[in-house]
Amino acid sequence: MRFLELTEKRSSVRQYASTEVEQEKIDYILKAARLAPSAVNRQPWYFILVREEEGKRKIRSCYEREWFKEAPCYLIACGDHAQSWKRGDGKDHADIDVAIAVEHICLAAAEQGLGTCWVCNFDVDSCRKLFHIPENVEPVALIPLGYPATSEEKEVTKRRKPIDEIVKEESF
Amino acid sequence: MRFLELTEKRSSVRQYASTEVEQEKIDYILKAARLAPSAVNRQPWYFILVREEEGKRKIRSCYEREWFKEAPCYLIACGDHAQSWKRGDGKDHADIDVAIAVEHICLAAAEQGLGTCWVCNFDVDSCRKLFHIPENVEPVALIPLGYPATSEEKEVTKRRKPIDEIVKEESF
Repeated sequence: MRFLELTEKRSSVRQYASTEVEQEKIDYILKAARLAPSAVNRQPWYFILVREEEGKRKIRSCYEREWFKEAPCYLIACGDHAQSWKRGDGKDHADIDVAIAVEHICLAAAEQGLGTCWVCNFDVDSCRKLFHIPENVEPVALIPLGYPATSEEKEVTKRRKPIDEIVKEESF
Repeated sequence: MRFLELTEKRSSVRQYASTEVEQEKIDYILKAARLAPSAVNRQPWYFILVREEEGKRKIRSCYEREWFKEAPCYLIACGDHAQSWKRGDGKDHADIDVAIAVEHICLAAAEQGLGTCWVCNFDVDSCRKLFHIPENVEPVALIPLGYPATSEEKEVTKRRKPIDEIVKEESF
């Protein structure tokens, strides 16, 4: 699949089948995350794989939406501020690095016929406590992972700004 | 190409041929950026395409490295803090969103045989002034774009943490 097609195919999936995700697909997706670039190659990230009942109960309490409960497994994408690169002006690049790796996850999953959804509007404090995430580490996003509930590929029309609104040629 | 192969192929290119990048490849890459997901679909980004001599002189003054001067064109990835989504606790998601779109650029470019490099350690104030970037907008990364100087595919071994260091199964 051409990369542009893959970016078309990836969409925010909010309906999941209960089918378990094969271990080899999870491995594939995490390998793609592992190869993401990061500032000064610090790789200030880790991913908590949640697929046991107790963990699922916990993660679902951090983002209480009906659709979110359907996913058969989840990843918690964490950024480690003790490891991340800070620019001279102090700008911490943890968010940027974690975002790159998470998007590798979402694209790899889409290629494998799996759905994901970037969830950022969750209860961070609760997540931190329930999953024993240390002070220096920030849970950045919760990623549900599973087969989309509808087996047929649904045509998703992405609402995006027109290209000439997001690209500017320099003018002097 | 499988997505995992594409993540292998993408690498930080710091040697460029002077060959111009075809307009259709630039268009393709920007289309892939356009389709990136963002928090609440705000798409708080734009990209300044720099390929005229005057613009190249300016961008090169923001990151003074010999290799950086070789690239035939550049993108300045900008995040608009007036448009980006802020979570209830105030966390601004501009960096995350721009990072996703930039990685789409880097992956699309790699697929097209082009090299890129995430450059974040540049002179932000100078860039802002030289390219008339408004207060609410932040230049997040400079992305050189061009054909790698060496035509043969060089085998890049990526230095990455082992997978078991970046994946944790939840334990309760």
